[in-house]
Amino acid sequence: MTIDTHRADQARKQVANDSVAALAGKWSPGGPLVGEFYTSPKVFDHDLEVIFGRHWFFATTEAQVREAGDYITLDFGPISIMVLRDDDEQMQAFHNVCRHRGAKILTDEQGVVGNLVCGYHYWTYSTSGKLLHVPGAEADFDPACFALKNVAVKVVGGLIYLCLASDPPADIDSMAERIEPYLQGHQLDRTKVAAQQDIVETGNWKLVMENNRECYHCEGHPELSSTFFLTYGLADDEVPTRLRPAHERYLLAESELELACSQRGLRFERIEELVEPATAFRIQREALDGVGESFSLDGSLLCQRLMGDLDMPRLGRLSMHLQPNAWFHFMSDHAVTFAVFPLGPDRTMVRTTWLVHEDAVEGVDYDIDALTYVWRETNAQDSEFVARAQRGVSSPAYDPGPYMRSEYQVEAFVRWYLRRLEAHDTEAN
Amino acid sequence: MTIDTHRADQARKQVANDSVAALAGKWSPGGPLVGEFYTSPKVFDHDLEVIFGRHWFFATTEAQVREAGDYITLDFGPISIMVLRDDDEQMQAFHNVCRHRGAKILTDEQGVVGNLVCGYHYWTYSTSGKLLHVPGAEADFDPACFALKNVAVKVVGGLIYLCLASDPPADIDSMAERIEPYLQGHQLDRTKVAAQQDIVETGNWKLVMENNRECYHCEGHPELSSTFFLTYGLADDEVPTRLRPAHERYLLAESELELACSQRGLRFERIEELVEPATAFRIQREALDGVGESFSLDGSLLCQRLMGDLDMPRLGRLSMHLQPNAWFHFMSDHAVTFAVFPLGPDRTMVRTTWLVHEDAVEGVDYDIDALTYVWRETNAQDSEFVARAQRGVSSPAYDPGPYMRSEYQVEAFVRWYLRRLEAHDTEAN
Amino acid sequence: MTIDTHRADQARKQVANDSVAALAGKWSPGGPLVGEFYTSPKVFDHDLEVIFGRHWFFATTEAQVREAGDYITLDFGPISIMVLRDDDEQMQAFHNVCRHRGAKILTDEQGVVGNLVCGYHYWTYSTSGKLLHVPGAEADFDPACFALKNVAVKVVGGLIYLCLASDPPADIDSMAERIEPYLQGHQLDRTKVAAQQDIVETGNWKLVMENNRECYHCEGHPELSSTFFLTYGLADDEVPTRLRPAHERYLLAESELELACSQRGLRFERIEELVEPATAFRIQREALDGVGESFSLDGSLLCQRLMGDLDMPRLGRLSMHLQPNAWFHFMSDHAVTFAVFPLGPDRTMVRTTWLVHEDAVEGVDYDIDALTYVWRETNAQDSEFVARAQRGVSSPAYDPGPYMRSEYQVEAFVRWYLRRLEAHDTEAN
Repeated sequence: MTIDTHRADQARKQVANDSVAALAGKWSPGGPLVGEFYTSPKVFDHDLEVIFGRHWFFATTEAQVREAGDYITLDFGPISIMVLRDDDEQMQAFHNVCRHRGAKILTDEQGVVGNLVCGYHYWTYSTSGKLLHVPGAEADFDPACFALKNVAVKVVGGLIYLCLASDPPADIDSMAERIEPYLQGHQLDRTKVAAQQDIVETGNWKLVMENNRECYHCEGHPELSSTFFLTYGLADDEVPTRLRPAHERYLLAESELELACSQRGLRFERIEELVEPATAFRIQREALDGVGESFSLDGSLLCQRLMGDLDMPRLGRLSMHLQPNAWFHFMSDHAVTFAVFPLGPDRTMVRTTWLVHEDAVEGVDYDIDALTYVWRETNAQDSEFVARAQRGVSSPAYDPGPYMRSEYQVEAFVRWYLRRLEAHDTEAN
Repeated sequence: MTIDTHRADQARKQVANDSVAALAGKWSPGGPLVGEFYTSPKVFDHDLEVIFGRHWFFATTEAQVREAGDYITLDFGPISIMVLRDDDEQMQAFHNVCRHRGAKILTDEQGVVGNLVCGYHYWTYSTSGKLLHVPGAEADFDPACFALKNVAVKVVGGLIYLCLASDPPADIDSMAERIEPYLQGHQLDRTKVAAQQDIVETGNWKLVMENNRECYHCEGHPELSSTFFLTYGLADDEVPTRLRPAHERYLLAESELELACSQRGLRFERIEELVEPATAFRIQREALDGVGESFSLDGSLLCQRLMGDLDMPRLGRLSMHLQPNAWFHFMSDHAVTFAVFPLGPDRTMVRTTWLVHEDAVEGVDYDIDALTYVWRETNAQDSEFVARAQRGVSSPAYDPGPYMRSEYQVEAFVRWYLRRLEAHDTEAN
Repeated sequence: MTIDTHRADQARKQVANDSVAALAGKWSPGGPLVGEFYTSPKVFDHDLEVIFGRHWFFATTEAQVREAGDYITLDFGPISIMVLRDDDEQMQAFHNVCRHRGAKILTDEQGVVGNLVCGYHYWTYSTSGKLLHVPGAEADFDPACFALKNVAVKVVGGLIYLCLASDPPADIDSMAERIEPYLQGHQLDRTKVAAQQDIVETGNWKLVMENNRECYHCEGHPELSSTFFLTYGLADDEVPTRLRPAHERYLLAESELELACSQRGLRFERIEELVEPATAFRIQREALDGVGESFSLDGSLLCQRLMGDLDMPRLGRLSMHLQPNAWFHFMSDHAVTFAVFPLGPDRTMVRTTWLVHEDAVEGVDYDIDALTYVWRETNAQDSEFVARAQRGVSSPAYDPGPYMRSEYQVEAFVRWYLRRLEAHDTEAN
């Protein structure tokens, strides 16, 4: 690339930055973003570059790449990535793009490989990304120059995070240190995938995230709210009369849960750092309603084999929110992970994965339909909410309205997002 | 919005205006627009903003929202609107966008409501748009600031017009005064919908309108032209030899129709103001061929119950053209309305509605297949014409050719359109 | 068009040129283009304007328009063309766009016509493009001003080339002179279409062409490589050990083929001018493996009636590559032509046509499934390769890698393409 074309590139990016920054300038604290953030192809490209291109995001779990050669592929927007365990059982991630003429190397969503062979011209890479063989290569060809392009990987208590930047935010380490103690008892590295569901929602990825960040809409989730307390996110003085009895049950269940956790050395207390640092998160163990064990309709266990070394079913849900693209619930008997991948300005993939103990036996310890019922219903309802929101915010008549107090985590997401854009602008200048 | 971002917005719009104005400068009188007017996303956005955003357009009829709580929704481009009759039986229209986080409120195409409840977080509005209830709202929350955004409504003889602008063109009143006497005998407020058809045509909305504005192509409508005189739009000296016999029949039928109308006090004469003012129209009662009563193959009645207080079947068609998006035929026994809604640069929705007297009984007074036959066939043929035109004008080889004299109403539509763009530019500067 | 709007047009085009030129500046010799060349809508439009708008491309063969009135239509991108034989049996091509209001005139893919009648308003043209009849035209209307817009046609040994420019590259004549002697014995003007296949590939047209320009990937074509030597494109010193036996067979078969050709006065030697001039090509007769006669699995004839005046089945393949959009194989018993038409940045139509002697009888001399088997399989495999390449080069992580020596014709295609863009820029300035 000549200096001139490089300058032209920089100039073009500067224009895009300025234009997104102008939109960001329209934001008023206390409410959502203006419509273009959810509809503009320019903002979408910017999100991929700045949010997904420079920050850690949740990709998958160790349960999906358990042994040497196991891989999954991940495609979103123009990006194609492979995550795999190499021959030394190390977790690796690479751009799924051949260094020859750019063909996609692995085309299945998951599988097992010995070497990574591009099916176009048989360029062959090791599972650690080294270029091993090029048919017809001449003597002066140096394979060391053409290793697969690396993607940064960080495994945190069995959860796999990726970062596409060459200088990933360093705060992932402190995040790992702080959440691993919470996850410990669940031993995610000793789980297997019981079920997985991919939904393509007709809404911008930020609407999907914002929808997840509040339970103000949870009346619209009848199955979920049979165990999930509708008082979530409400301060004591905000609980309406009709939810008072539920709130009493919640307070009682919480104190019992706190006691049980402290007896077992299980972390319980909330950490909530949703705006800063770059790798922002929230984690907390909270009680479930009813029997209090799992996301069934009455709150009883959905898998008879408990996770890890847990010895008690009634542990509610250990819930974690992660900027920019994930949320999780870990119960005593199973875990559910949710990962969000932007496909287009108004299309987003939501991948839900149900994990159980690696020794749990389908049909004996758990039934797939029962295990997945509540979240399948809830996902379908959320997908409908997101579609309604996308349709409305596309209207020229849309004006951002006020958040309620119980939507403070939605605002936290928006603030986190805008700060990341701003930080990027500052660096770029 | 800061002053800076407002200025950036204005600058951006100015660029769009200038670019559409440059295209408009390429127009030569006597022929159609250049190709970009039918294919460019920029022009499409501009049309939505200027034509559909600042002018009255036809939306629906009173027959579709007859009682308090009845509503229809209308979605085109990014716009979503609801039209409803409020608790005081007044006609209302609002942007179908919640004032909270912008979700679409009514998702069905039509229905009946008590209050307007957004299904996302249960914000609740009255049928007159007032915000009645917000779950969890704090004491200092003022619902008066968050009423639904109003859309201007004007009911003209049972036809419902909308305008999205805050200052709708005032000439709607004089238009109403002048067309209501024509519509009177048909009593559209005492009709019901017998049938409705939505077609998505693969052409720009202006090609759909232009196709409607001439009968130069009516040889391609064998069913329609069994009653619709092919001489429509031809001056006496233009009628070709083979159409002379039809023309003789037409002249005779017209004079009989004029007599019958004058005896009954029914308006007959043509008003044609298709270029100015902003709310431009054409109306005229004209004879039909054959039995002369309705759009059947032989011209006989399609509904035995006549409309309103009409006492004679042979009243031909009272036909009305309306800029920018509608045309109508009112016969003694039924009415057909056509409304055009732009969906994308090359996609347009055409909604056809057949209205009969509210007391007409299906299966007794009329048969739906027979009632709708001629216009279903004609619509399908027109849809094919529009698709051919769209394909051709997209070609870089397309050059606008000359209109024939019988296409003068097509040119009137183009002139009306360009004047609206020009008036907008003048205001903007 | 006023001077001002003309200037605005020029300015707009200059910006597009500059931006594509900046991308071209990123190219490093010895490897493929940067990703935007395969994904950007701006580059796609530029390709249509510069490559397909100003250069000769292969459209069809005389076998498809054999008699007066026979026509085919060709639609790609925004372009719609008809190719037909006029009443004097001359080959003609026109833009398939009515001079009235731009409707597409011929809507079928092929057929027979007397006159060319636009189905919209019955404007009628002769098969030589003259406007014959306009219903309702006034006395001062001059049909001579509204003939169909001409597209340049050149027939070369039965192959039909088109050029959309008013000043087509003159070098087509020298190309014709040089390739006609090769094609002579096959007598393409005395063939008929036995089968035709259209595939829409999910990749940019240049990836389709680049895929065709090398056999480095031919291990992925098991059916094809039973007769097509995998050593194609390899210099003697590049042939790997495992292909040595095949290479020996190839050398022997080549010398036999050369002898047979010289005995019959058939041209054999390679002409390879793939970068210059504008109408660039490559032609060569080469041996096939196995029986050596045709593209069957064992190399034996697929049609018992030989083409033209050929008297010997074992003539291998006369193969021709043509910039920008075609390749061909002519065997003793049949010919296969491949034409590539860009539909969108990531969609391309590949049309494959199998030709046999006009007197060959289906079911007697040839079986359609057998005749088409190898190339149907090969096309499906290539379509998959192109899709993989498109997916990968869309990634921001894609970096053009090095071509192998056997990919020199891919580089020649890229060089030819970039020179055409550059020549256009030079002219435009």
